[in-house]
Amino acid sequence: MRAVDLIRQKRDGAPLSSAAIRAFIEGATGGSWPDYQVAAMLMAIVIRGMTLDEAAALTDAMVASGQTLDLSAFGPTVVDKHSTGGVGDKISLIAAPMAAAAGAIVPMMSGRGLGHTGGTLDKLEAIPGFRTRLSLDEARRTLGRTGCVLIGQTDEMAPADRRLYALRDVTGTVESVPLIAASILSKKIAAGIRALVLDVKVGRGAFMKTLDDARTLANWLVAIAARHDVRAEAVLTSMDAPLGRAIGNANEVVEAIETLKGAGPDDVTTLSVEIAARMLLLGGLARDAADAVGQARRALSGGAALEKFRDVIAAQGGDPGVIDDPGCLPQPTVRLEWIAPRTGFVAAMDAEGVGLAALALGAGRDRVDAAVDPAAGIDVLQPVGARVRAGEPVLRLLSTDPNRFPGAISTLDRAIDIADGAPARLPLIQDVVPAAAAAVHG
Amino acid sequence: MRAVDLIRQKRDGAPLSSAAIRAFIEGATGGSWPDYQVAAMLMAIVIRGMTLDEAAALTDAMVASGQTLDLSAFGPTVVDKHSTGGVGDKISLIAAPMAAAAGAIVPMMSGRGLGHTGGTLDKLEAIPGFRTRLSLDEARRTLGRTGCVLIGQTDEMAPADRRLYALRDVTGTVESVPLIAASILSKKIAAGIRALVLDVKVGRGAFMKTLDDARTLANWLVAIAARHDVRAEAVLTSMDAPLGRAIGNANEVVEAIETLKGAGPDDVTTLSVEIAARMLLLGGLARDAADAVGQARRALSGGAALEKFRDVIAAQGGDPGVIDDPGCLPQPTVRLEWIAPRTGFVAAMDAEGVGLAALALGAGRDRVDAAVDPAAGIDVLQPVGARVRAGEPVLRLLSTDPNRFPGAISTLDRAIDIADGAPARLPLIQDVVPAAAAAVHG
Repeated sequence: MRAVDLIRQKRDGAPLSSAAIRAFIEGATGGSWPDYQVAAMLMAIVIRGMTLDEAAALTDAMVASGQTLDLSAFGPTVVDKHSTGGVGDKISLIAAPMAAAAGAIVPMMSGRGLGHTGGTLDKLEAIPGFRTRLSLDEARRTLGRTGCVLIGQTDEMAPADRRLYALRDVTGTVESVPLIAASILSKKIAAGIRALVLDVKVGRGAFMKTLDDARTLANWLVAIAARHDVRAEAVLTSMDAPLGRAIGNANEVVEAIETLKGAGPDDVTTLSVEIAARMLLLGGLARDAADAVGQARRALSGGAALEKFRDVIAAQGGDPGVIDDPGCLPQPTVRLEWIAPRTGFVAAMDAEGVGLAALALGAGRDRVDAAVDPAAGIDVLQPVGARVRAGEPVLRLLSTDPNRFPGAISTLDRAIDIADGAPARLPLIQDVVPAAAAAVHG
Repeated sequence: MRAVDLIRQKRDGAPLSSAAIRAFIEGATGGSWPDYQVAAMLMAIVIRGMTLDEAAALTDAMVASGQTLDLSAFGPTVVDKHSTGGVGDKISLIAAPMAAAAGAIVPMMSGRGLGHTGGTLDKLEAIPGFRTRLSLDEARRTLGRTGCVLIGQTDEMAPADRRLYALRDVTGTVESVPLIAASILSKKIAAGIRALVLDVKVGRGAFMKTLDDARTLANWLVAIAARHDVRAEAVLTSMDAPLGRAIGNANEVVEAIETLKGAGPDDVTTLSVEIAARMLLLGGLARDAADAVGQARRALSGGAALEKFRDVIAAQGGDPGVIDDPGCLPQPTVRLEWIAPRTGFVAAMDAEGVGLAALALGAGRDRVDAAVDPAAGIDVLQPVGARVRAGEPVLRLLSTDPNRFPGAISTLDRAIDIADGAPARLPLIQDVVPAAAAAVHG
C-alpha cells in the first residue's frame, strides 16, 4: 500500500481499512512515512473524520506500535481513571489511592501539563524523590505490592502516539475526536487495564468548550474502549472555574493530602468520591452504586486512602514525610495577592485564564520540553460565589521569581470578574455516559 | 502569523488573507515552514478549496517568490501558449514559430514530460545542440533577435512552485484546481507575458477526464490571469487518442517540421492554426478572428513559420540542419510493429495507454530526475477510425533497447481496441473559454 494512495483515499472521504490504518501507523512510527506524508494524512483525517471502525483500528494500531503491560494476572479489578485535562485537577492523586485502598488494582499512567492545563506527573514530581519513570517490570512489581502505581508513559508504550502528537501540535491537526480518542485510549489499553473511568472536562478551561462536544468525545471514548474489551464510562464535569483551591504542583499535592485527610474543598472531595466509586463499580468491587460510594467514602474517612498514598509515595522513592508535613514540599520564595478591585461577588474565575496565570508564574509549560517550577502556582482564597470587599485578597500568587508576577496579574485581571449579583451555580457533574449507552455517529 | 494558526484557519474552511498566503509561500520557499506544515496546509487547501481571491493571491505570492522577466519593452504583443499536457502534443513547436513569424513576441517557457505525458523541453532537446537552459538575460536578448525563445523554467523563477510541486506529488495534494492554476500561471506570469492561450486537454489521456472538470480549470485559469492583467483564453481540446501520428521526442520534432512544411496530420495542423491565430488575436496583431486565422495559415503556407523555427533552433545552439534532414536527429536502433489482432476499425487508441507504452520504450520518465531516450517513441500508422486487416501494422515502436518492447506491447494490447464498427468522431475542439467570460465559483 503506497502512502500517497492511502492519503488520497482519506482525502476523498473514503474510509480506510484496518490494514491501511496499520500501514499508516507502522509507517509513521518506523519512519518509512516521512513527516510530510503523516501530516497530510492527519489533516485529511481531521477534515474528513473517521468511522468508529476506523478509530478502533487506529487505537489498535497505536497499541501495537509498542510494548504493552500484561496485567491479566491481576484479574478484572485492574481499573484506571483519566481526565481530559483541566485547571486545578488533582483528582488522580486522590481517587487512585482511594480505589486501591478499597481493593482495586490501579496502574495509573498520567501525562504532563501543557499550556493552561496541569499534569498529574508534574504534581507528583513536586514530591521530593518521587520517581514517575518506572520500567514496565518495576511498575508490575510495585503494583503487586501496593495495588497502585502512578507513572508516566514509558518510551516503549504506544510510541506512535508520541510521534503523531508531536506532529499534530504543529500542523493544526489536534482537534479531531477520533485522533484524541485513539491517543487517550491507546496508552490506557497498552497499560493493561480492564476498566476505565473518564473525566471529560467541559467549559472554558477545557479542551471541549460545549456539553455537546464533550458528550461526543465521551461517546467515542466509551465505544472504542468497548471494542477493546475495556469497560469504560465517562463523567462530564464542569471546567469553567478551577477545581478546588490550589492551582500549581506542590500546592495541589497539599490539597490532595488534605482531601485524603477529609478536609479538602467540597468540589474536590465530591468528584474524588464520584470517580473512585465508579472505578470500584466498573472493577467489579462493589455490588451497586450505593455500595461503591459507601466504600469510597470509608476509604477516606477511615484513613485507608491516605495510608495508601503514603505507601505509593514510599514505593516510588518519594518522601512520605510530605503526608504529615507539607513543609517538605518545594516552597515559593515570593508571594503576592490579587486584590478585589471592587466590592461584590466573585462572579467568574475563568479556568483557562487562571491556568495561564499559573503558567506565567512558572507552574506550567508552554512547550513539551520546558521545565516547571514545582513551588509556583495560585491559591484561591475566595472562590466563585464568594462575597468580597474592595481591597480584599482573592488569590495568592506563588513563585520563586518576582519577575513573573506582572504577566500573571494582567492575565488574572482579565480572568476574574467581580460583579454585583451572585453567580448561578452550575452542577459539577453535568452528565454521565455509561458503558452500555455510548452512541457514535462516525 | 504563526504557521499553525494559518493552517487551522484553512482547515476550518475560512479563506486566507493575501498576507497569510504570502506568509505561507515565503515560509515554504524560505524553509521557515517545515515540510510537514506545508503538507498540512496543502491538504487543507485541497479539501476546503480556495476562493478566486485566494488563488490570485497564491499566484501572486508564487511569482514574487523568485525573479521575473521584464519584457515590457516589447509591448502588448508578448504572448505565449500553454498545454495542460497530453500525448503526442507537439503544438508548441509549431504554433510558437507561427505566431512569431506573424509578429508576436513569444517567450515560451515549457516543462518536461512526466508519466504518460510528454514535455516540450524533452522534444526540443532531441535536436542536437539545442539549449533550453538560457539565463534570463540570454532569453531577453534572443527574444529581441528572433521574436521567439523556447526555454525551460529557470531555477530563479517561481521557486515556490517547484517546492510545492515536489511535496504535492508525494502527499496526495495534486488534485486541486486552485493549486494547479497557480502553478501554471505563476511561471507564465513570471516570464513577463501579456497574453496567453491555454490548451486545456480533456479525456482519458488528460489530467482532466471530463469536460466539466476541464471547463472548471479553464475558467479559473482565465479568471486568475485576468487578475494579473494577462489576457488569457482557453481552448478545450480532446485528448482521448494521441494527437497526430508521432509520440516521443525526435519523431515528434519530425512531425512538427512536416507540419510547418504544410504536410502535417490534419489534427496537428488544425490545432496549430487555431492556437497560433488566437495568440495573434490576443496579442493585438490581428483585426479579428478571420484575419488571425488567415495570418496563421499564411505563416505556414508561405514558409515563414518554418524559417522562424530554423532561426530559433540556430539561436539556441541547435543544429538547423534538422529542418531539411530529419536524419540529423537521434535515430532508434530497434523497431517493432504492433499488429492488428483482427480485422475491423481502430475504434480506440487510449492516449494514456499509448503514452505509457512510449514511456516504457524510453521516451518518457516516471520520476522527475530520470533521463529520456530521444530516439524512442511510437509512430501511429493507422489512426483511430482507420480500417485495418488482421496482421496489418497499426503502430511502429521505436527504441534503442529491445528489452523495452515486451512492456510496451502488453500496455498497447490493453490500450488499442479493434472493433467491427467505425468509432464516432469527437470534435478536436470541444469548447472555448474566452477572456471575458470566465466564471469561477470558488
